[in-house]
Amino acid sequence: MSKIALIGAGRIGRIHARNAALHPRLTLAAVVDPVAASAESLATEWNAPVRSLEDVLADGSIDGVIVASSTDTHLEYSIRAVQAGKAVFCEKPIDQDLQRARSAADALKGARLFLAFNRRFDPNFQALKARLDEGSIGHIESLQITSNDPAPPPPSYVAVSGGLFKDMAIHDFDMARWLLGEEVAEVWAAGSCLVDPEIGKLGDVDTARTVLKTGSGKLCVISNTRRSGYGYDQRIEAYASAGMVRADNVLESTVQVFGEGGAGSDRLQNFFLDRYAEAYRREMDHFADILAGAMPSVGYADGVAALALAEAATLSSKTGEVVKL
Amino acid sequence: MSKIALIGAGRIGRIHARNAALHPRLTLAAVVDPVAASAESLATEWNAPVRSLEDVLADGSIDGVIVASSTDTHLEYSIRAVQAGKAVFCEKPIDQDLQRARSAADALKGARLFLAFNRRFDPNFQALKARLDEGSIGHIESLQITSNDPAPPPPSYVAVSGGLFKDMAIHDFDMARWLLGEEVAEVWAAGSCLVDPEIGKLGDVDTARTVLKTGSGKLCVISNTRRSGYGYDQRIEAYASAGMVRADNVLESTVQVFGEGGAGSDRLQNFFLDRYAEAYRREMDHFADILAGAMPSVGYADGVAALALAEAATLSSKTGEVVKL
Amino acid sequence: MSKIALIGAGRIGRIHARNAALHPRLTLAAVVDPVAASAESLATEWNAPVRSLEDVLADGSIDGVIVASSTDTHLEYSIRAVQAGKAVFCEKPIDQDLQRARSAADALKGARLFLAFNRRFDPNFQALKARLDEGSIGHIESLQITSNDPAPPPPSYVAVSGGLFKDMAIHDFDMARWLLGEEVAEVWAAGSCLVDPEIGKLGDVDTARTVLKTGSGKLCVISNTRRSGYGYDQRIEAYASAGMVRADNVLESTVQVFGEGGAGSDRLQNFFLDRYAEAYRREMDHFADILAGAMPSVGYADGVAALALAEAATLSSKTGEVVKL
Amino acid sequence: MSKIALIGAGRIGRIHARNAALHPRLTLAAVVDPVAASAESLATEWNAPVRSLEDVLADGSIDGVIVASSTDTHLEYSIRAVQAGKAVFCEKPIDQDLQRARSAADALKGARLFLAFNRRFDPNFQALKARLDEGSIGHIESLQITSNDPAPPPPSYVAVSGGLFKDMAIHDFDMARWLLGEEVAEVWAAGSCLVDPEIGKLGDVDTARTVLKTGSGKLCVISNTRRSGYGYDQRIEAYASAGMVRADNVLESTVQVFGEGGAGSDRLQNFFLDRYAEAYRREMDHFADILAGAMPSVGYADGVAALALAEAATLSSKTGEVVKL
Repeated sequence: MSKIALIGAGRIGRIHARNAALHPRLTLAAVVDPVAASAESLATEWNAPVRSLEDVLADGSIDGVIVASSTDTHLEYSIRAVQAGKAVFCEKPIDQDLQRARSAADALKGARLFLAFNRRFDPNFQALKARLDEGSIGHIESLQITSNDPAPPPPSYVAVSGGLFKDMAIHDFDMARWLLGEEVAEVWAAGSCLVDPEIGKLGDVDTARTVLKTGSGKLCVISNTRRSGYGYDQRIEAYASAGMVRADNVLESTVQVFGEGGAGSDRLQNFFLDRYAEAYRREMDHFADILAGAMPSVGYADGVAALALAEAATLSSKTGEVVKL
Repeated sequence: MSKIALIGAGRIGRIHARNAALHPRLTLAAVVDPVAASAESLATEWNAPVRSLEDVLADGSIDGVIVASSTDTHLEYSIRAVQAGKAVFCEKPIDQDLQRARSAADALKGARLFLAFNRRFDPNFQALKARLDEGSIGHIESLQITSNDPAPPPPSYVAVSGGLFKDMAIHDFDMARWLLGEEVAEVWAAGSCLVDPEIGKLGDVDTARTVLKTGSGKLCVISNTRRSGYGYDQRIEAYASAGMVRADNVLESTVQVFGEGGAGSDRLQNFFLDRYAEAYRREMDHFADILAGAMPSVGYADGVAALALAEAATLSSKTGEVVKL
Repeated sequence: MSKIALIGAGRIGRIHARNAALHPRLTLAAVVDPVAASAESLATEWNAPVRSLEDVLADGSIDGVIVASSTDTHLEYSIRAVQAGKAVFCEKPIDQDLQRARSAADALKGARLFLAFNRRFDPNFQALKARLDEGSIGHIESLQITSNDPAPPPPSYVAVSGGLFKDMAIHDFDMARWLLGEEVAEVWAAGSCLVDPEIGKLGDVDTARTVLKTGSGKLCVISNTRRSGYGYDQRIEAYASAGMVRADNVLESTVQVFGEGGAGSDRLQNFFLDRYAEAYRREMDHFADILAGAMPSVGYADGVAALALAEAATLSSKTGEVVKL
Repeated sequence: MSKIALIGAGRIGRIHARNAALHPRLTLAAVVDPVAASAESLATEWNAPVRSLEDVLADGSIDGVIVASSTDTHLEYSIRAVQAGKAVFCEKPIDQDLQRARSAADALKGARLFLAFNRRFDPNFQALKARLDEGSIGHIESLQITSNDPAPPPPSYVAVSGGLFKDMAIHDFDMARWLLGEEVAEVWAAGSCLVDPEIGKLGDVDTARTVLKTGSGKLCVISNTRRSGYGYDQRIEAYASAGMVRADNVLESTVQVFGEGGAGSDRLQNFFLDRYAEAYRREMDHFADILAGAMPSVGYADGVAALALAEAATLSSKTGEVVKL
């Protein structure tokens, strides 16, 4: 059993706490949060002590640290945990600022840091990747990633989100890199404000299409909107030289109702914590593997690369020009 | 080009007239119907002469005859055409009365008579049969045939229809024999009147389940209702020793509309003349082949066998007992 | 928090132990099993004590008992627990012998006993039931239940299973009663041995179709086979007066692979503990509700009724005659 | 009955000849083709005379002309037919050269000329448009058009095709204009040669993504490849303010085969003359309507607009820059 500490008892922290506490190879040994009430309530739920960050980092019996605090602390806590000799499970994104993220290279490059991009752990996307890797449909040539939210966040959230490309599409940039198996050379993005004029007033867009091109000419389109009107749309189509593989949405149930007008399927699984519940469990599995000696499958460098794409897309959508990387 | 005559200018006759007239190997050379106006209008549409039955049968240049007249004349006209040396395309059913149908055995057994069970010519059911015949999913063990009408016919039609089993399920009995590849040994049917009490007053049922068992123990369930509430439901599932093959319904279009409540598909293709339009064309193709020397793939004996199953099911649903054949 | 004890540390007992231990309103307070090693290993996993049955029943702090022991002990342990004032969560079936099950009527009729038919708690079947209950597609008229296992059990299991109808179809008889909302008046079953001759030598069948008819004429077909050749096929179609509702199979993922030959979907979710994992969780939720005062939604009388249908179907398949209830 | 003449007895001309000859309101009154053998064979098939172009244009009894000759003659024959007072059914594209196409404005703008973009007449895309027009899912915001060929044409064809954007994507540009209901303001295209290096040597691409943006910010992505590896992929997704509507591919049959590995659907309908057979029939219906006085729903100006988008996309893919219109 590896002992781990959780930093951050917010919404996503609570998910990781549960998965860590229930994991057969992990013990949740500490909960850290500056808000005492949050830390206490979560710690009580899983029968773990509330501790200070300093205390946790100084405790040699703590093997790993989950960084699920606010985005602007991801880098700092990760570096401190790495320097204290801990394995790190860091929530995405690595940071909102590319320069700042890059400045951590000396401290984090090659560190035992797992950057938790949840979509890489979704069973459907993993199955898609497995089909590609099997090779029976040849090698990948292009990619279509659709990632639409059911409803826009409040403008107050948008204002501090870093913008659609860093906040929403960051996942998709990581998926593109993971599936294309090659670095992106050019980024072009078109964004519009079609959903909520308040988002436009903040200088952001709510609807976007981004095209990525790799050095060898592979193409990827990312479609994003802050409000789909039909639920949480999370799909990928990968086009290969001898076929195509698609991961479709997850529905609430397999029920279909047939009437005069046709058949109606059930709703998309709309809340991201439900949609990606299994992905979060698999993330924790991977962290347990890392604590047992495995290399993180996705780390600091991937976080920086995704952020660089997000920054390029943001720039392209403002200038209307292609950004070369 | 083979010359053919059509007997019967009603709804189904008009379909066959069109398909014959447009067929590259057939010429529609005569239209016969006791109702002069019907014969005239159809003949004009396809530029064919109206002629009498006697005239047609005596004309040595006529190679084949389509019998699409009322059910009670199928046997008589088929026999006369066969005796005149014509190939015959006879609409189903062969007759409504099993004894009468059997009494034509001397005249029709082995005759060049094609009994037009349209479902055998539907591209979807043919594809299902082809998958079974390929053998990749082993040998068939059981069968589920679903055959529901969108809406019940008027009681006046029901009164002369021969009842649900002879009128509707007759198609399904033929499909069962075709797909099981073995004769049925036992029939058990349960019927209810759930849709229209008028149908019950006529001594008929509007909802039924029939179970067929072959000598080797293969099982087939036939589900019928006169009113589905969701369209013309025409499906088959064939269960084999190493898998299953299904032919699903045909939809009006491939369109799906996604909203908050889920995705809605388009309506089932509901009118039988649309649903089986291609089947009727393929029937005519088969008749052209027969005129060129091929053996009918389905004939008089099949018509009698299906009728015998319909009569057995009718009896079973009344007595509640198994009927052995 | 209600304290509960688990009797039976076998495969299904382990599932219930986990769900009870993780349930926010339940405490797993005792594990009982005559095999000490099984009891110990499960108790350790969830930090619960191993105790004797007598001890548990005498302990006034234990609110509920889960009976997950071998089938022939279900009745005895349930009665003892009820007499000790405990709420009971009893695994299906209530018993394999109808007379014996009925003889417990005085002790169990109306008792606070939840008979855990898992399919009633499957999210898909619950969604199907909810659609029916909403009434937008009218009232139910007929039902098609498909319940096929991926592969047959060993003959040694079949020999003590009570036969296909009591072992497999018992679930489907319960579903039929639950969805039809009316008692069954007639049962007719056809069975064959098509999969494994050893099963036939034991006097059992491996492939069956059962037709149920209620007093008002509603019809239900149950399709069972011990070996589907394509996975764990668990589907229901409910035909109502203004439409149809279907619950389809659950797939391993939403991935589809497109090639020259068409698109291939992923495999059915084949292991019943995976397929019904959420159903088992919901069962435990229901038990927590019962411990808080709710009435069991399914109990002793339902267990007897399903068993009566299984016995009738077994008889019908042997005699070939309809069994009236 | 309107009398029409067909110019061009090649592959697509033969389709139009059949649909015209079988149309209840049209008479195929002349076949024109410089290759006498082609003209003769087609004319014989439909019992129509072979005539010269001059003869046809001078014949006052000819109401309409179908221009299905080689692309470089579309403009000339259309203008001559319009000047002779005929209604014109002109195959797409209007021309391969934008300047030349524009120079015909005086002669053709507002003429009774139907430019036959077949996808507008596909029942699936028409159903999609109808759902959008109904308004129940709000107003359109963005569009995803997927249009992939099963296999690349020979390099000799590519050399004279005008390039991927004018040859393949021209259809998609027209669909975008039709569905967005607003003119495109910006075009950005990324192309790669991933399928056949010979295509690259000719200066063309075989894989492309094009992004269109309208003045109000609506976005459209067009995905094209010359070789999909899985058939003729013809899909559209339209994203609206309150939902999404999709038109999916058409399959050869509704058959699905279930085995251990999952369910396999049938192949996509792969040959464009099959896939769009009904669209061609509906085109002829529309021409019959025009001959009866209706306005063409799509004409010269639409042909020029689509060509302008194709030229802009070609330019953008070469320069890597956005082209503003």
